[in-house]
Amino acid sequence: MKTIINENEMVHELLGYENIKIIQNDEMFRFSIDSMLLAGFVEVKDRFKEIIDLCCGNAPIPLYLTLKTKAHIIGIEIQDEVCDMAKRSVELNGLNNQIEIINDNLIDIHNKVGANKFDCVTVNPPYFKYIESSNINKNDYLTIARHEVKCTLEDIVNESKKLLIDGGFLYLVHRAERLSEIVNVIENNCFNIKRMRLVYPKIDSDEALLVLIEARKNSNSGLKILKPLYIYDSNGEYSSEVKECFNLKKTKK
Amino acid sequence: MKTIINENEMVHELLGYENIKIIQNDEMFRFSIDSMLLAGFVEVKDRFKEIIDLCCGNAPIPLYLTLKTKAHIIGIEIQDEVCDMAKRSVELNGLNNQIEIINDNLIDIHNKVGANKFDCVTVNPPYFKYIESSNINKNDYLTIARHEVKCTLEDIVNESKKLLIDGGFLYLVHRAERLSEIVNVIENNCFNIKRMRLVYPKIDSDEALLVLIEARKNSNSGLKILKPLYIYDSNGEYSSEVKECFNLKKTKK
Repeated sequence: MKTIINENEMVHELLGYENIKIIQNDEMFRFSIDSMLLAGFVEVKDRFKEIIDLCCGNAPIPLYLTLKTKAHIIGIEIQDEVCDMAKRSVELNGLNNQIEIINDNLIDIHNKVGANKFDCVTVNPPYFKYIESSNINKNDYLTIARHEVKCTLEDIVNESKKLLIDGGFLYLVHRAERLSEIVNVIENNCFNIKRMRLVYPKIDSDEALLVLIEARKNSNSGLKILKPLYIYDSNGEYSSEVKECFNLKKTKK
Repeated sequence: MKTIINENEMVHELLGYENIKIIQNDEMFRFSIDSMLLAGFVEVKDRFKEIIDLCCGNAPIPLYLTLKTKAHIIGIEIQDEVCDMAKRSVELNGLNNQIEIINDNLIDIHNKVGANKFDCVTVNPPYFKYIESSNINKNDYLTIARHEVKCTLEDIVNESKKLLIDGGFLYLVHRAERLSEIVNVIENNCFNIKRMRLVYPKIDSDEALLVLIEARKNSNSGLKILKPLYIYDSNGEYSSEVKECFNLKKTKK
């Protein structure tokens, strides 16, 4: 069976890893490095059987995670056309047996996929608050991916709580400037933050851009804040750690 | 008038800055580098008239802040003997006109020193939770300085809220591992965290040790997470940034 690639779409390698392909569309949705950093941050356990990726976009996180685990992975994407790209990317890689893409709103998705069932939730959510009075077109593809039009941080964390088993892991990447709110929402929803890592564009950046978070449902406290992660080195190239994240399979050979 | 120095006490320079002296006692209380890092992190505004340092110990933070501001500074210390050292250190430096040391519990101290009055609260609090059943002697000087025997984080933040004017600044240094709780307590007490900086022992440390926090009472959200601060360089010496912090006056000349 030949996977259909539509006009305006391109097939890219999932960053440096040559054997996984991903369908992209500049006008609609392209995955960001943030998703790769989150997928690299996930510590997959051998016992994981079920993983779910919320706001999966064109499925970079599910695709990446197949390099780390044999667990079954569900991706949830609310936007029809983006979801269609995700499904075809999975097909293109022959991963239909491991990855299932569902076109739905993540809110109350536990009613369809199962409550208290998942070992791990991953999510690269919309980063920005949506302000009704702003000039942003709330039906635009990129707006929905970037702004909290269809779901808020609270929705995501609350749904994650319902999806996860006790002790299950929530992995989140978000804007560092929203850290206070993130901590409050996570800790007020029966989670404990276990690991945290700040991401800076460069070693001399004045301010962190992103935060990577690992939280566990109904766990005990005890947070480790890891060393900072720098995206670029002083020559403007991806840092060695980011390159390693992109070439996971190769480094494992 | 000659300041009395008791047996077992030593007069030290306040780190690299030669013109400020501080009375120390190995058996009772010695200030830590953490206090210096916090004092260095404080952004004193010209408009500041009243500053209060809670858990002031032998007064390293009030003494340091006199290098940065002409504001009146109150230090609160609950332990009689430690407070006595602080008072004599202030006297030794001829700073009685600028610094006032009060021997009292910080809880409800606003009834004595004034509510909604201070531009800035600084605090290097006890870092560890006190567990009643532990073998720790809760009357020991060091225990009281390090463990939450006499006051908890919640007590400190709640009292800071009462002391500060609207828009007033709270500066706190604490253990990084307690960050989730710190964020919750601060944000649930009408504060917004504005600046945060993680402190690592060395550039290759796997984990942050401390966190420096600037919060404002009844402010708006918008957090900046600054670049990490390393205490030691790769040669095991204080990093250049820490040395600069210690030699504030000199670098200003």
